[in-house]
Formats: sequence, structure tokens, C-alpha cells
Amino acid sequence: MQRIAIDCMGGDNAPEAIVKGAVQSLDLTKDTKLFLFGPVEKITSLLKEYNCSSDRVEVIDAPDVISLHEAPVMAIRRKKDSSIVKAMHFVKDGQADAFISAGSSGAILAGGQLIIGRLPLVPRPPFGALIPTKKGVCLLLDSGANVDAKPEWLVQYAEMGSVYMKEVVGVKNPKIGLVNVGAEEEKGNQLVKDTMPLLKAKTDINFTGSCEARDISFGTCDVVVCDAFVGNCILKMYEGVGKMLLSEITSVLKSSPVTMLGALLIKGKLKTTLKKFDAKQYGGAPILGLKSLVVKVHGNTDGREITHAIQQASDFIKADAVGKIAAAMEQKTPEQEV
Amino acid sequence: MQRIAIDCMGGDNAPEAIVKGAVQSLDLTKDTKLFLFGPVEKITSLLKEYNCSSDRVEVIDAPDVISLHEAPVMAIRRKKDSSIVKAMHFVKDGQADAFISAGSSGAILAGGQLIIGRLPLVPRPPFGALIPTKKGVCLLLDSGANVDAKPEWLVQYAEMGSVYMKEVVGVKNPKIGLVNVGAEEEKGNQLVKDTMPLLKAKTDINFTGSCEARDISFGTCDVVVCDAFVGNCILKMYEGVGKMLLSEITSVLKSSPVTMLGALLIKGKLKTTLKKFDAKQYGGAPILGLKSLVVKVHGNTDGREITHAIQQASDFIKADAVGKIAAAMEQKTPEQEV
Repeated sequence: MQRIAIDCMGGDNAPEAIVKGAVQSLDLTKDTKLFLFGPVEKITSLLKEYNCSSDRVEVIDAPDVISLHEAPVMAIRRKKDSSIVKAMHFVKDGQADAFISAGSSGAILAGGQLIIGRLPLVPRPPFGALIPTKKGVCLLLDSGANVDAKPEWLVQYAEMGSVYMKEVVGVKNPKIGLVNVGAEEEKGNQLVKDTMPLLKAKTDINFTGSCEARDISFGTCDVVVCDAFVGNCILKMYEGVGKMLLSEITSVLKSSPVTMLGALLIKGKLKTTLKKFDAKQYGGAPILGLKSLVVKVHGNTDGREITHAIQQASDFIKADAVGKIAAAMEQKTPEQEV
Repeated sequence: MQRIAIDCMGGDNAPEAIVKGAVQSLDLTKDTKLFLFGPVEKITSLLKEYNCSSDRVEVIDAPDVISLHEAPVMAIRRKKDSSIVKAMHFVKDGQADAFISAGSSGAILAGGQLIIGRLPLVPRPPFGALIPTKKGVCLLLDSGANVDAKPEWLVQYAEMGSVYMKEVVGVKNPKIGLVNVGAEEEKGNQLVKDTMPLLKAKTDINFTGSCEARDISFGTCDVVVCDAFVGNCILKMYEGVGKMLLSEITSVLKSSPVTMLGALLIKGKLKTTLKKFDAKQYGGAPILGLKSLVVKVHGNTDGREITHAIQQASDFIKADAVGKIAAAMEQKTPEQEV
């Protein structure tokens, strides 16, 4: 059984969407046990509403909530009865193997480090983001955890990302790129120049060199590593440009009876194609380098992303990805060998 | 007369597209004088081919070419007879007021600094990029010139960008944003944290605070400033995601007789809408902070962007934007006042 702790109180549509997503996962992942954290009466009544009486679901009372506007570290320290803190302690105590939440990114990141804890040798666990590409999906590390990164952190992101894509997404020999402003050797800022030789020296990953931001969405790499400031800008450009272009195209389609007829003829295929680019199908952003898997789901989830995140967490646990990441970290990094 | 020096030998479609673009500009900008740099016989025969006998066009012989693959500084120093070097010296000597090229960005940037020269008080001229947005256009500074930027450089970018948008694009009281990973005060890397108070202290620009990358394409700011590494990633994500999504949509439209019929019905309006997002209509990327305007046009231009760049340069010269930028730079920056 893969035991997964779920914060039911995070996100815009909590707890309804979260509980719904959890219930929907039960038929898809047969060997999971879900622990739902939230106000017990509310969660229990929602389970009834969704006709769920499975013995693979257990509700654990957590009457308090950490809101988006609270200072993350303070909230994690003080709100002992919140769904995030209680669920994370449950994972830390070995009663579950993964944690999923659509709540505050800051609180999830802080709690992941303060409660669940970092793996030995991982000073800075990165936030992953799964970016849909023309060919599949690319894991962007770090998408927002550690700004002003050091070269050794980026090397670890590459190693951890490689394990993740191999074990959880099923990519054989994942191609790893370092985000850069050009393909030429001499390009890059100081961080890139310092990181490049360290990554080149790594023999246990398939490092393919510089990756320009424009190539990411075409799927040239399976993992791209960068400082969190850069990664966050990349992720938000991806979201922003996609959203803006689609809103423009939608307004064209709705602009006259003629275009509406045209829209009718292309709608089906267009939807299928654009679905590929919906990050939600990939089930949330993992934080890697912690002692257990922590997954952050979009705050606006309608529940489907929770379902996918549970599948993803289940695969992660089955593959012992934490163990494999820990093992990869124990191999000496080049600068330690010097 | 606005006198503009044009490198006819840069870009994938040179010299044909460049000469064509120059000729096409003559009817649109009535008070320009164009100096075309390249092998004189070739350029003259192209002018004949395009039926141009205007006395507002003069060809100046430059038999050599700087290719994309040459080390920029070395090429600028050694290739005295290249179209870039000869045209830039022409500008430096006061015989023209602006320089336009679709050639190597590196060579244009190096030549701009080494030949045309920086304005006093501007240590690092940034590369601008005009990003089309839902509302119009946003000037991104720095899109690729100076990585590992210092806070004072970003403050200068903000000032220069404000002048550019006001004088050349015609935006009243341009809104200036600092690219950041969140709206909250405590967010950001060290550069952003150090730059924020300097920008806030500036009373001569309309600084609006942090701007997240996802908001850029919606047009929340008229100018966004950031380090060149971040700016280059933003620009390339914009280009990459746009290109990828449009190629996916095109393949949907072409996928069956039914969708092709649908495409026929929406094509006209879709084209009009998407044209808004074609950066080429804005006429290239200016380098600001030099003693004369230098504009880099996309290497793959078919000539239309050259036409627009000439119009843009003409407006820039008429507005005395260089003089206004120089004046803005002479106002003490906050840290100098301390």
C-alpha cells in the first residue's frame, strides 16, 4: 500500500475539490491508502456526498488552516492543528510516504524542510515544475525555491531531476540541460560558467549542455536546471503567454456568427491538442530532496490535478524515488572529489 | 533629414531583403536619407531591380562581411571594410544619426560600444526587446547585453526605457516594472532587493513595483527591467511558447477536411489578431545608452522589419531621444545623492 497524506484545506476550491479528487483517484490507483486532513465533520460529510465509503480512505481531524497570506515559517511553527502541519508530521512519523497539498507554496516549502526534513547532503531542495512540451513534459528545477543559487545546488537538481524523470515519468536516459542564453561555450552568467564544468564532469547523468529558453517548450530536454529566479520567470512566461494567446484565439472564435461556425468545426480537435499543454494532467509540482515526496498542486484545482498527483505520488513511492535520489546524492560531486 | 546608416549584409536574407525593406520605407518616411553599406555593385543592382532611383538613397562600398560565427570584438577590430564597421564609423563621424543591422547581435553590441561609443555615465548599454502584449507593446531591458547586472544599471535601464517609450512609441507616463518572482515586498533575489529601493526613490519615472513574468504579455507594464540573463530567458520563452502553440494550432487546422473548412471561416480574423503579436511590426531591438541609436533587426527578416526599424529610427532621431536619455542620466541617481 502507498500511503499518502492529503491536505484537504488548501486552494481556492477546498475542501470540496480536494476530497472529490481524492475519491476519484481510488478507482485509478488500487493500492493507495489516503489520509485526508481537515475538519473531520466537514470532510466526512463530503465523503458521504461523493458516495465514498472505501476503507482505503481515513479522515484525520485538523481543525485549523494556514492561509495564503500568512508568513510561511511562522505559520508552520505556530499552527500545530492546521491540515498542513498535522499531515506533514504524519509523514515525518512514518505513517505516510507522501504529502499532497494545493495550499500556500511558501508554507509547503517551509513545512517540507522544517517538518519532513531534507535528505542528508541536500542543502536546498528545489521546487519542480512539469512543463508540457510538444514531445511530452519537461521538469524545470528550480521553479521557485532557492534564489541566488550556487553551482553545486544546480548539479544536485540535475541528479534529482534525472531520477525523477526516469522513475516517475518513465523517460529512459533523460536529457538534462542547463538553462543558458546561447549555445556557445562562452555564453552565460557567472553561475552558468561555474556550473557547466561540474555538470560536464558528471558521468551518471545524460547532460546535453546549454538549453535556451526558447527550446524548452519544443521538448529538447527532459530536465532543465537553473536558479529559482530564472526558473520562476520561465514558468510564469510559459503560463502567461499560453493563457494570453489562448484568450486571444478564443475571442477570435467568438467574434462573429461565421467564426463561431468555424469554431464548431475545429473545436473537438483543438481541445484534444491543447489538452496536451495542460500542466494539470501531470499532477502538480514536486519538491525534491526531502525525506519524503511533497507535491504542490495548483491552488485553482478542480480536483483532477489532485487525482493525477495521487497517481504520481503512488508511482514515486513504488519506485523508491526518495531512496534513489538519496543514493545519487551520496555519490561524490566533482568539486568534492578535488 | 533623418540620416540612417544601414548594414545591408546582415541576416539570413541579406542583402536582398535589407535593400528591399529600405526601398519600401522611402514612401512611408519622407524625410529620411538612407546610406546603404555593402558591396557597391551588388547593392546598386538590387536598387535597380527594385526600381529605386531616389536621391534619398546613397550606396557606400563595404566589400567585407562579419559573419554570425566570428568572435564579435575581434571581428569589429579587424574587419575595417565590413558593412557593420564602416557604417558604424559613418555614424560615429556624425554623417548619420542611427544604425540598423540584421547581423550578428554580438558584433552590433561590440561595435556600438567600441565604435559609436557609450553615453557618459552609462557603463552598460542594454539591449531592448519590444514584446507585443494584449494592450500594445512592452520594452524589455535588458534582453541580452549585460549578465550579472548591478542595481545601478537596472535603474538606468528604467530611466532610458521610460524616455524611449515616451518619445518613440508615444506612451504617456510609461509604467515601469521590476521583474520579480512575486508581488510581495520580501520576494526576490539579492539584485532585486538591492534595486527596489533605488527605483522607489526615483521621482522622474512612473515606477510601479514588482512585475511577475506572467503579467508581461498582458501588458501591465510599458517597460520591464531585469538582468540580461533573466531578460533573455523571458524573451526566448515568449518566442518559443508562441511559436510552439501556433504550430500546434496550425496543425489542428490542417488535420482534416472539416477542420480545414473551419479554418477557412476563422482565418481572416485570426490573422489580424495574431498580427498584433508579431514583434517584427515594431522594427527591431534598440540598444540604448549609446551616442547614437543602434537597432538590431531579426536575422530572418524579409525586409518588413527593416522598413519599420527605419520609421522607428526616424522617430527616435526627430525626438532627440539620445539627448533626452543623456539628460536623464545626468540627473543624480539616488545612491550618488547619499
